[in-house]
Amino acid sequence: MKDGSPSPDTRARIIAAAEQLFRDIGFQKTTVADIAKTLSMSPANVYRFFASKKDINEAVAELMTGRKRIRLEAVASEPGTARERMRRLLTEMHIMMAEFADADAKIQEMVAVAIAESWSVIHDHIRDIDTIIANVVREGIAEGEFSDVDPEVAGPCVRAAMTRFCHPSVLVMCRDIPQPTLDEQIDFILAALGAGRQETPRRAREATRAT
Amino acid sequence: MKDGSPSPDTRARIIAAAEQLFRDIGFQKTTVADIAKTLSMSPANVYRFFASKKDINEAVAELMTGRKRIRLEAVASEPGTARERMRRLLTEMHIMMAEFADADAKIQEMVAVAIAESWSVIHDHIRDIDTIIANVVREGIAEGEFSDVDPEVAGPCVRAAMTRFCHPSVLVMCRDIPQPTLDEQIDFILAALGAGRQETPRRAREATRAT
Repeated sequence: MKDGSPSPDTRARIIAAAEQLFRDIGFQKTTVADIAKTLSMSPANVYRFFASKKDINEAVAELMTGRKRIRLEAVASEPGTARERMRRLLTEMHIMMAEFADADAKIQEMVAVAIAESWSVIHDHIRDIDTIIANVVREGIAEGEFSDVDPEVAGPCVRAAMTRFCHPSVLVMCRDIPQPTLDEQIDFILAALGAGRQETPRRAREATRAT
Repeated sequence: MKDGSPSPDTRARIIAAAEQLFRDIGFQKTTVADIAKTLSMSPANVYRFFASKKDINEAVAELMTGRKRIRLEAVASEPGTARERMRRLLTEMHIMMAEFADADAKIQEMVAVAIAESWSVIHDHIRDIDTIIANVVREGIAEGEFSDVDPEVAGPCVRAAMTRFCHPSVLVMCRDIPQPTLDEQIDFILAALGAGRQETPRRAREATRAT
């Protein structure tokens, strides 16, 4: 680089290398020297971008939660009624966290460290999930599918009502508790949002009237 | 005892002594010899009642969960509308588990062992909670306060929707997540049961008409 300032591309390469090493050899065992070696650079160069290994882990945690957010936003914006989209979104949240619960110990260690050391990243991720849910609630109200609830309150309530299916530790601890099923819990949540009592959303009713 | 059969009273005294020792010196440190010594009896006599320390712990776990069940049943049967009783029941469930989450390490160790070794006791306790909730749901439907949901499905769904406030590990892990509040979550659950849209229950409406 001509101006000597840290390149965003190098930053991204360090994060990618760190994530790969965390997955391959584990978070605790990975040193900044290992990350530098993978990229054929000096540890001093890594430290130009990150003050500490904690900062690298935080960046990896942001990358991972960012991927999950994108995946959930994509599911939430697929075509369908708000009720259908909410069901798909909550099912995807469950699948995503069940994948994590089944992942190997190295990935779980990485996330445990993220929770302990980079709580703000996890907290932001929880807020992102609340926002994605709240947006589907807002659209459902606009479509006349859901009751006139406060989406900002409903988002966290829906997320909390899914804890048994979406919190990685709880998923593992509650594996042997048969009830409720995922679909029963989603039906329950949809009822709380006022869906289900009015089977045909307003848009569909208007479309029917128009024909 | 004349017939030489184990006395139920002695059995209860062994369980009480074990619980006290688990609380005082911890589950791992307590031996069957300690329990016998407290009661001025021989370890052999303790083994007439319990095949192993695991069996004693299971009996202690049953005693403790039984106390919780009685406390919840009492709250659920206090006077009031089904909506009021459900709110009090869920609030009590939260208070009870928050007390446990704040309890000292020895009690938490005892329960951790119960979960690991006497899972059937915990499982039965979860089913008891589902039944207590389902009974309030059933009464709420009969009173015209709640929608015509299936109480056997609603019980586990309500319990699962309260996980963030009632599961001891989750309570601790989620302490720093501000939303939802307990009352917001209970309102959400009541909405799922169809309460809240019809403010005056049938019994109250009939009483009003009768005057």
